[in-house]
Amino acid sequence: MRTFTEYLWFETAKRLEFIRITDDVAAIVRKSAITDGMVLVSAMHITSAVYVNDWESGLIHDFQVWLEGLAPAGLDYRHHQTGEDNADAHLKRTLMGHQVMLPITDGALDLGPWEQVFYAEFDGQRRKRVVVKVMGTP
Amino acid sequence: MRTFTEYLWFETAKRLEFIRITDDVAAIVRKSAITDGMVLVSAMHITSAVYVNDWESGLIHDFQVWLEGLAPAGLDYRHHQTGEDNADAHLKRTLMGHQVMLPITDGALDLGPWEQVFYAEFDGQRRKRVVVKVMGTP
Amino acid sequence: MRTFTEYLWFETAKRLEFIRITDDVAAIVRKSAITDGMVLVSAMHITSAVYVNDWESGLIHDFQVWLEGLAPAGLDYRHHQTGEDNADAHLKRTLMGHQVMLPITDGALDLGPWEQVFYAEFDGQRRKRVVVKVMGTP
Repeated sequence: MRTFTEYLWFETAKRLEFIRITDDVAAIVRKSAITDGMVLVSAMHITSAVYVNDWESGLIHDFQVWLEGLAPAGLDYRHHQTGEDNADAHLKRTLMGHQVMLPITDGALDLGPWEQVFYAEFDGQRRKRVVVKVMGTP
Repeated sequence: MRTFTEYLWFETAKRLEFIRITDDVAAIVRKSAITDGMVLVSAMHITSAVYVNDWESGLIHDFQVWLEGLAPAGLDYRHHQTGEDNADAHLKRTLMGHQVMLPITDGALDLGPWEQVFYAEFDGQRRKRVVVKVMGTP
Repeated sequence: MRTFTEYLWFETAKRLEFIRITDDVAAIVRKSAITDGMVLVSAMHITSAVYVNDWESGLIHDFQVWLEGLAPAGLDYRHHQTGEDNADAHLKRTLMGHQVMLPITDGALDLGPWEQVFYAEFDGQRRKRVVVKVMGTP
C-alpha cells in the first residue's frame, strides 16, 4: 500500500467560477503509480466545493442559479458582523459538497460515462488549494 | 492491504425510486475477505444518489416531497436546451450526495443502529451502475 | 498499512447543538501512529451530521437559521405517523452531510487554514456516536 499527495492551486479571475479538474486528478493518479485504490479530492478552503456532475455549460448555469436561490448572497447574515461578506459562499459550498472520493481501478479513474470532477469557487480572486491524496496498491 | 471491487446494476421501473442496498454492500464486503477498512459506495451516473438514512417508508416519502420542493422538475432549465429534461435529477442527486464511505470493523459493516444505505434514482428506466470498492486489511 | 478505530460519544444538553471536534479527531490520529493516509469521521446516527467549515459563532448561527428555512421542523411529515417528531432532523443532516474524510500528511491532519470539523446534532438529548477510522501507513 502506498500514498501519494499533491495539491492543486486556484486563483480565479471571478468570484464565482466552476472549473473542470478531472484531467488534473487523473494526471496525479498516473504519477502516483497506484493502480487500484482511491483518490480523495478535497477543497482546503471553506468557501469552495469539489463535486462530480455533468460537463455541460447549461447545467453549470442551472447549478449556479439554483444555489443563488437556496443560499442567496447579500442577506443580513450574522457572519458579516465579523467584517466578512461571504456567508452565502459557505452555504453554497455545503450544498455542493467539499470533497469526493474517486475509485481507481486498472490504473485509471473508475468513472461512469458522464462523471466529471469540478472545483466550484464561491469566493474567488484569492489563492486557494485542493488536496489530492491517492491511496492504494501499485 | 487489499482492494476488492464490484458493481451493482440498476434499471428501475419508475423514473423515481429509492432502493435499500445495505445487504448488497454487506455481501460484497464479506466476499472481499477484508475485515478492517472502508468501503466506498458511489453512483457512477450523475442523476442518481447514494445516501445513508432511515429505512422507513414515511421518511422516504418525505425526502421525495422535500427534494421536489427544493429542486423542482419542469422548470425552464438551461440544461434542457440540449434536449435533456432531467436537470432537476442532477440537482436532487446533489442534495442527497452521490457516495458514502462505510467503515468495516471486525469483518462487517460498522453501522449505527438505524443506518441503512440507499440508492436513489432520479432519472431511471435505464441501466445504471454503482461502484463498490473495498479497501483494508484481511 | 494499518487501521485504527475509535468512537466519539455525544449526549447534548439541547436538541440542536454544533460541537467542534477537530482536536478530538487529531488526538485519535496521533494515537493511531499513522503518519500518512486518511481518517473517516462519520455520524452513526441518522439525525446528526459531521461537516467541515468555519469556527465562527455568527456563521454557525447562520447555518442553523438557513437549515430551518430549507427543512423546517413542525411540518406535517409522513414520518411522524410512526410517532417520531424529527423528520426535519433527517433532512437537515442530509444537507450538511454525515461524514468527512480528512487527509493525514506528515503525521497530522492536512487541513486548510480555516478548516474545522464539527459534529452537528439535530435531535439530541440522547447518546449518539461518531466513528473515527484511520487508515494509512505508519
